[in-house]
Amino acid sequence: MTEKDIKFMKRAIELAQEGMNSNSGGPFGAVVVKNGEIIAEGFNRVTSTNDPTAHAEVVAIRKACEKLGSFQLDDCIVYTSCEPCPMCLGAIYWARPKAVFYACDKNDAAKIDFDDAFIYEELDKNINDRSIKFVQILQKEATVVFKEWDSKVNKTEY
Amino acid sequence: MTEKDIKFMKRAIELAQEGMNSNSGGPFGAVVVKNGEIIAEGFNRVTSTNDPTAHAEVVAIRKACEKLGSFQLDDCIVYTSCEPCPMCLGAIYWARPKAVFYACDKNDAAKIDFDDAFIYEELDKNINDRSIKFVQILQKEATVVFKEWDSKVNKTEY
Repeated sequence: MTEKDIKFMKRAIELAQEGMNSNSGGPFGAVVVKNGEIIAEGFNRVTSTNDPTAHAEVVAIRKACEKLGSFQLDDCIVYTSCEPCPMCLGAIYWARPKAVFYACDKNDAAKIDFDDAFIYEELDKNINDRSIKFVQILQKEATVVFKEWDSKVNKTEY
Repeated sequence: MTEKDIKFMKRAIELAQEGMNSNSGGPFGAVVVKNGEIIAEGFNRVTSTNDPTAHAEVVAIRKACEKLGSFQLDDCIVYTSCEPCPMCLGAIYWARPKAVFYACDKNDAAKIDFDDAFIYEELDKNINDRSIKFVQILQKEATVVFKEWDSKVNKTEY
């Protein structure tokens, strides 16, 4: 943990406070850093923008990618005021930064009634045992499109 | 599986084809249905918009919530041409539709080189064993904000 790590995490915590104070959403903030500079900031905006995906990390990742003109966060570090929920963790894996620093963890989040731990448990379950009903239909029809993708030329992979 | 389920899934598959053909992103489509009507549609836009979170389900969920003016998809059904990746599954749990229909599954996705299975494996790992480095710092400082949230009045919970 360097002085810079502390500085960037303090900014993420400050954003969490700012978002909460302005009734933007839950008490979560995040920044994306590249080459020792913050390139994007975000706080939770779920309830103020009616967007369940607008978690601090997703907001900051989307902004950072827009700024870099890339769908990948090469050599970037994400600082988030709380351990990412499964959605944000998925977003992080798709964006592929080199590291993630977090402050509070999912147990702290559970204590203030955020569902992260519940969602982690649901992900581990067999798809048929989940609390939301999942049903597979038309697999064969959809596979046709996957096969076309497989043989498509000049596609952008990610 | 009803005739309507088939109709909505066929539309999701059509969107997957449309997104692929227009080089918007990967071969994935989704629709959100409420009261027997499609209220939002989406296809993958990752590579064309430089947004790693723009999976078909996330695009459709964001649009549906915008249309409903709510951060919850009460009584909605999501039809997606492929089993949701961990990010989209997280988004689905936060949006809380009543059911999800999917066509291809994560094994089909793996066959055309999409990382879903890898991310599912990473989520199951201890946070210190993951391929992206995760480091916890300043937990105590961040917890202060969580405690303020806990005692905050007039907050919108989600």
